[in-house]
Amino acid sequence: MDDADARAAALDRLRHEMAWPPFHQVLRPRALEADPGKGVVVIGLAYDDALRRSPDDKAYHGGVIASLIDLAGHAAVAVKIGRTAPTIDLRIDYLRPAAGSDLTATATLIKAGRSVARVDIDITDDQGRQIAIGRGTYSTL
Amino acid sequence: MDDADARAAALDRLRHEMAWPPFHQVLRPRALEADPGKGVVVIGLAYDDALRRSPDDKAYHGGVIASLIDLAGHAAVAVKIGRTAPTIDLRIDYLRPAAGSDLTATATLIKAGRSVARVDIDITDDQGRQIAIGRGTYSTL
Amino acid sequence: MDDADARAAALDRLRHEMAWPPFHQVLRPRALEADPGKGVVVIGLAYDDALRRSPDDKAYHGGVIASLIDLAGHAAVAVKIGRTAPTIDLRIDYLRPAAGSDLTATATLIKAGRSVARVDIDITDDQGRQIAIGRGTYSTL
Amino acid sequence: MDDADARAAALDRLRHEMAWPPFHQVLRPRALEADPGKGVVVIGLAYDDALRRSPDDKAYHGGVIASLIDLAGHAAVAVKIGRTAPTIDLRIDYLRPAAGSDLTATATLIKAGRSVARVDIDITDDQGRQIAIGRGTYSTL
Repeated sequence: MDDADARAAALDRLRHEMAWPPFHQVLRPRALEADPGKGVVVIGLAYDDALRRSPDDKAYHGGVIASLIDLAGHAAVAVKIGRTAPTIDLRIDYLRPAAGSDLTATATLIKAGRSVARVDIDITDDQGRQIAIGRGTYSTL
Repeated sequence: MDDADARAAALDRLRHEMAWPPFHQVLRPRALEADPGKGVVVIGLAYDDALRRSPDDKAYHGGVIASLIDLAGHAAVAVKIGRTAPTIDLRIDYLRPAAGSDLTATATLIKAGRSVARVDIDITDDQGRQIAIGRGTYSTL
Repeated sequence: MDDADARAAALDRLRHEMAWPPFHQVLRPRALEADPGKGVVVIGLAYDDALRRSPDDKAYHGGVIASLIDLAGHAAVAVKIGRTAPTIDLRIDYLRPAAGSDLTATATLIKAGRSVARVDIDITDDQGRQIAIGRGTYSTL
Repeated sequence: MDDADARAAALDRLRHEMAWPPFHQVLRPRALEADPGKGVVVIGLAYDDALRRSPDDKAYHGGVIASLIDLAGHAAVAVKIGRTAPTIDLRIDYLRPAAGSDLTATATLIKAGRSVARVDIDITDDQGRQIAIGRGTYSTL
């Protein structure tokens, strides 16, 4: 299987993972890219009024950002090691609000060891600005 | 206003805050206790199949836990300083899954300074076991 | 061996651990208490001008606080499981400076699982004020 | 002042900052590069037996790594905003031991806002391998 085939197969699996969790029917994350060699996934999230923190504006609830970071981090580990890995811990830094914008999460595996993996997750808005960044530790046992 | 009155008024405000964000229609957090003197709030979350990470079991999606930690942390700052405070950053440690159990989040203000507040959040299941713990930094400017 | 004997034996081991690392000749941490049942250790650090961040005042360098949190967290895991456990990751929140004061670090094991342990560490000054708090994940494999 | 001059002036200031704190006489960090436009600093740390965690091997004490991350993060904020900024909180992920190797810390400002700045810090050994990564929040008020 060449590299393009491996990425296409990984993207298919990522699509399945994004559709599988019942909670994702709220968030509706979309698989955009998957690179199993590098341990990178890109996931889109379309803006929806149901994801707001207030009925007065279009800013996302912090929990939506946290959820997107968590699920993208999981997916970056899974695309590399071929199975899901529970989150041990997670840090999220909120950089700016993203009112009414679609979001893109790019998760990059830093290191996958025998027992833990570390992942960086970057969330940008539709103008490419960083909205939030995350860093997580996942169990690979 | 004596202490019991202050707590009752704070609980009323907390109920309003829990009902206000559109995203909370998914999570349905319930205000249980509010102590404005100590900066403590207790928030309940009822188990719902829509909050699962998999259709195969009753464990919560990590994003639900993260959302509950974020909203409880916010509320602990708000009950103390009387207004909302944006999250700067957040750490979440996942301790064990909580399959099918209602959850209780207790958020305790550690310190509210002129520019930032720190909060610890503890999530327990219906048997009192710790499910996850969070620690957040919030802007009080 | 009764409980008081177990604590005395654990305190002896903690004294040895505090004296062992070459880097501790700079910090000079002192073992004060060890409770192997609860996974709690208390460690003291005496103020020394060599630990300052500036020759102009007596505030500690942030790295000294971080080092004290790291070593106390390690010790809380070790007192419980009987051997050292590498740090996976660590969060430190700096709450206020502690100019010229001796410090006390209390580290409490939250949970020791098969593969990871979590510890909370609390640093106070000689008036009992919280100076910094830490939360770490350690490998118990 | 052109860009090369600005970097040279920033490197001079960084050298002064590295020499200033009494605690740095233990760590002996060396200013290697400073880019005030990008908010990037590079700092070297030479291996020394006094920085070990054990007399039995040449691995660094975790507190040394944490100290290097903290001081490099500070310096990245300072090179950008022209003054020191207290650490609010810090996350450190330990990736692998670095026995007997010199270390290089590269700190990159992610965002400097009106009240807080975020910095990523990357520590590598003399073969370019990642030893630890850090992420910090600093007060810019």
